[in-house]
Amino acid sequence: MYRTENCGELTEAHVGKSVKLAGWVQKRRDLGGVIFIDLRDRSGLVQIVVNTETAPDAFIIADTVRSEYVISVSGHVVKRDPQSVNEKMSTGTIELLVEEMAIINKAKTPPFAIKDQVDTADDVRLKYRYLDLRRPEMVETLKMRHRITQKIRKYLDEKGFLDIETPILTKSTPEGARDYLVPSRVHPGEFYALPQSPQLFKQLLMVSGMEKYYQIARCFRDEDLRADRQPEFTQVDIEMSFFEQEPFMSMMEQLMVELVDEVKGVKVTSPFLRMTHREAMARYGSDKPDIRFDMELKDLSDIVKDSSFKVFQQAVLGGGQVKAINVKGQAEAYSRKAIDELAVFVSTYGAKGLAWLKVDEGGFKGPISKFFDESTAEKMAAQTQAENGDLLLFVADKAKIVADSLGALRVKLAKDLGLIDESVLSFLWITEFPLLSYDEEAGRYVAEHHPFTMPMMEDIEKLESKPGEVRAQAYDLVLNGYELGGGSQRIYQRDIQELMFKTLGFTKERATEQFGFLLDAFEYGTPPHGGIALGLDRLVMILSGRSNLRDTIAFPKTASASCLLTNAPSEVSPDQLKELSLEIDKPKITK
Amino acid sequence: MYRTENCGELTEAHVGKSVKLAGWVQKRRDLGGVIFIDLRDRSGLVQIVVNTETAPDAFIIADTVRSEYVISVSGHVVKRDPQSVNEKMSTGTIELLVEEMAIINKAKTPPFAIKDQVDTADDVRLKYRYLDLRRPEMVETLKMRHRITQKIRKYLDEKGFLDIETPILTKSTPEGARDYLVPSRVHPGEFYALPQSPQLFKQLLMVSGMEKYYQIARCFRDEDLRADRQPEFTQVDIEMSFFEQEPFMSMMEQLMVELVDEVKGVKVTSPFLRMTHREAMARYGSDKPDIRFDMELKDLSDIVKDSSFKVFQQAVLGGGQVKAINVKGQAEAYSRKAIDELAVFVSTYGAKGLAWLKVDEGGFKGPISKFFDESTAEKMAAQTQAENGDLLLFVADKAKIVADSLGALRVKLAKDLGLIDESVLSFLWITEFPLLSYDEEAGRYVAEHHPFTMPMMEDIEKLESKPGEVRAQAYDLVLNGYELGGGSQRIYQRDIQELMFKTLGFTKERATEQFGFLLDAFEYGTPPHGGIALGLDRLVMILSGRSNLRDTIAFPKTASASCLLTNAPSEVSPDQLKELSLEIDKPKITK
Repeated sequence: MYRTENCGELTEAHVGKSVKLAGWVQKRRDLGGVIFIDLRDRSGLVQIVVNTETAPDAFIIADTVRSEYVISVSGHVVKRDPQSVNEKMSTGTIELLVEEMAIINKAKTPPFAIKDQVDTADDVRLKYRYLDLRRPEMVETLKMRHRITQKIRKYLDEKGFLDIETPILTKSTPEGARDYLVPSRVHPGEFYALPQSPQLFKQLLMVSGMEKYYQIARCFRDEDLRADRQPEFTQVDIEMSFFEQEPFMSMMEQLMVELVDEVKGVKVTSPFLRMTHREAMARYGSDKPDIRFDMELKDLSDIVKDSSFKVFQQAVLGGGQVKAINVKGQAEAYSRKAIDELAVFVSTYGAKGLAWLKVDEGGFKGPISKFFDESTAEKMAAQTQAENGDLLLFVADKAKIVADSLGALRVKLAKDLGLIDESVLSFLWITEFPLLSYDEEAGRYVAEHHPFTMPMMEDIEKLESKPGEVRAQAYDLVLNGYELGGGSQRIYQRDIQELMFKTLGFTKERATEQFGFLLDAFEYGTPPHGGIALGLDRLVMILSGRSNLRDTIAFPKTASASCLLTNAPSEVSPDQLKELSLEIDKPKITK
Repeated sequence: MYRTENCGELTEAHVGKSVKLAGWVQKRRDLGGVIFIDLRDRSGLVQIVVNTETAPDAFIIADTVRSEYVISVSGHVVKRDPQSVNEKMSTGTIELLVEEMAIINKAKTPPFAIKDQVDTADDVRLKYRYLDLRRPEMVETLKMRHRITQKIRKYLDEKGFLDIETPILTKSTPEGARDYLVPSRVHPGEFYALPQSPQLFKQLLMVSGMEKYYQIARCFRDEDLRADRQPEFTQVDIEMSFFEQEPFMSMMEQLMVELVDEVKGVKVTSPFLRMTHREAMARYGSDKPDIRFDMELKDLSDIVKDSSFKVFQQAVLGGGQVKAINVKGQAEAYSRKAIDELAVFVSTYGAKGLAWLKVDEGGFKGPISKFFDESTAEKMAAQTQAENGDLLLFVADKAKIVADSLGALRVKLAKDLGLIDESVLSFLWITEFPLLSYDEEAGRYVAEHHPFTMPMMEDIEKLESKPGEVRAQAYDLVLNGYELGGGSQRIYQRDIQELMFKTLGFTKERATEQFGFLLDAFEYGTPPHGGIALGLDRLVMILSGRSNLRDTIAFPKTASASCLLTNAPSEVSPDQLKELSLEIDKPKITK
């Protein structure tokens, strides 16, 4: 037997006991005749002591071990002298007096130190992922990921949801993101697609009467990756029949309440705040607002539309808005230069400028203050709750640009100014999403969530006349400014689904070819159903306090969708291509 | 709210209560003024009664409903008259007196009846899988699958195993079965492969110090499919560090004991029987013997090698064997014609013939009886424990053909003769597998399990001299004649792994190109590790008493790897191919 105990679990209760340990050498110090080793396993660290007097054979071995060697030791647990106690270590009041030691496997010097907060380049971390994962914060993150999924599974099991696997080799339905394709050998020229979500299958499970389904499902999108995207990601997929939105949201809230209590010991209260999409956009300029701080967007359009400031006037006249955020008490802190930098920031969201006013005893100060008469200025101050020392920042533009730029600026300023209490978990539902949005490039409406989302019944008559005004029976769960996931009541009637496809510009033929099996299924006794899909990677990221999705995934890919550890993707043999009836149709581009 | 109770969960305790139900119309009978409907949901059936006198509005609606309509009803639960009790129904002593009824969704007449034991063609079942899944036995199978995975997860969690996801987009390593490939858009001409198992990643997790890992993992093999294979299948993948074979096997036994108790209420005892591969092949002609019945293979080579029966003589002389099975008491039951049919059966396993003897008072009877003198006949009878009325069936051939043909015949006869107690779960470990087998076609040794399996230490010196004789530290878990899964101690030293690749005919360059990252990883402090992979689909199949893997999977594929429901795989657009830098290199073959 390699070991009787885990390193990090030894306590003073073990003092006097004979134990065996196995693990990795974290650190080794030779104090002349006595060698101290910090021994590490998954559970943590413990100090082991090898004395040349009492354990001469073990000492000879200990003399040769180096960092990351795998060793096994046996000996007695003893209490440390008071002056040797290490309070930073959970096992810091004890140590193991080694009697025997064996080297299980040697190690080369790792390319970076196995500890947190290392300043190692990302690509080195990814190439040596098996060493990167030895760092305590990586171990803790994967442990938390395990606890999170375990809790979710337990909760859903208790609520009667069945864990049902849906296929990974599915059919390509090029609506939405780009599919990863898998050539078929048996059917030359044909392809499977990896699922972007189990959407169609979970709906078919509802048609099949499974009633309550969940799956922690791998999903795939062949998109150009940003820092917080991965080509494969994991979704907590939940769907139920005889669905009603409010009880379903309550059940999800209860899951979140129990989950964050269990994995973080944080108490949150339910029901969570609910806010319509319209309100969220108006107040926070975002459909996933971080409500851990205020600094809301204030609409000044009506107040300033008659002012002499042309920029504001014209924005409102052109159907746009003038909005401001009040950066409380920061008038002094932001110089013109600092504000210019904020203007550059908002310009990335399309804002043509960032107007500003500072408030002091005498009223508004700043280059545009002259454009507002006393009455207007008073109204502006009232609307923004401006007080002495405040900084007001304005964007005047189309509604979308105002929302995007001030929404992002609000978050940036809160971070810069330390306004966010990182210990708080602030859940929020966003409801009444628009069903459709107009895609200028495609010249047609596209589904805001997906084409299977049920319109709000009172809006359904507008589907053909004013598609942009139709609201969806859809909701997003937001946590600390991140979209944790979204869901909806689904369409379960063939006629409404056909109308939806038509609204999205599908011909009848294309709707039948791509989704005919679903339309057919709806005719065989389909119950009302709905559900939600939560991004597991993001949930783990937020709850574990990491800043990158990659850190929540054991073997992630780079922004160019490569695995630096295994070197995937890679070239394959001509035989493999031939079997798949494929040819590469352009010369390989040098990377 | 659609419902307050589930149909199948109503009991006499509900009598007098007002409840709401929702579900599917299983059956509807109109007895003139009273309509009886069997209402079905996931939990089961209940009879609802609509009386034109007491609920005229509901009656009008009930008059229009047809099979598989989705309806909701409210009313009171009443006890049935004694003469109306239906003992076949778990809710057969009660019924619901309907007060209100609503049609939630209509249904066309389904292409087959929603009940068990339907004689519907497989392709119709698969095309309408959402209806096929409504059948009670399909619901029960998926429920059992859920309970099995839930139990496995709980057990492994309690033992400290972490559920860690490994990538689906991985690197192609063309050793073993054929990979499914995924073309990369970002890296033209390069491909990912879908994993045949998480083998390399789980070993890397052990290098990373995760110590105990599990995953219920989707795996993929692009092989020509037999009835019991699927292109994607699910594996319970378990790996641990500081691994020792016996304690690990005990832990797996405990999992199985608890699992079959929990999901089937069957008590099995551990430790399970252990048998070496050599013994299993000798006694049962199989490395996955069904030990619920005897009829073992008896070696008669030494006894018959000097007989005058040339076929036996020459088989032994040529290095082969003569073995027999004793079909107890079946001499009368098998005519010459019936035995000829068995000969045809064994010929599919390569046997050139099936010799036979019947035993009666006067000794052996049958065309070959004359070849054996009294002394030989006595020894043969003793060796096969032959008694009056027994039928002995002989195969004389190379060892592999003898094993394959008699091993298969043994199972066939046991099934034909009803010798198998289907209520028994008979677990068994097969150990000491050969590490390598010689592949005539490839002209080299190939790994029996996979190239990462540790040889038995006492055999390791034979790796270069007599590779065929090296035994592996590998074991299979067998249940009722099925291989549930297999595992091994893994190689964790670079030098042994390199030697293994060399033995398998890898050049150093190829080993480095394909598995260099693993060889490198082994040099950074790799603990001894090992584990097992269990076929979940097969486990579910056996425990749920189904005869087909497809019935354990919600959306399976056909033998030509097609999904008849969604019509995958399918052609994709020229734009999709262009983005992937691919061309189809031959005209589409008409299917």
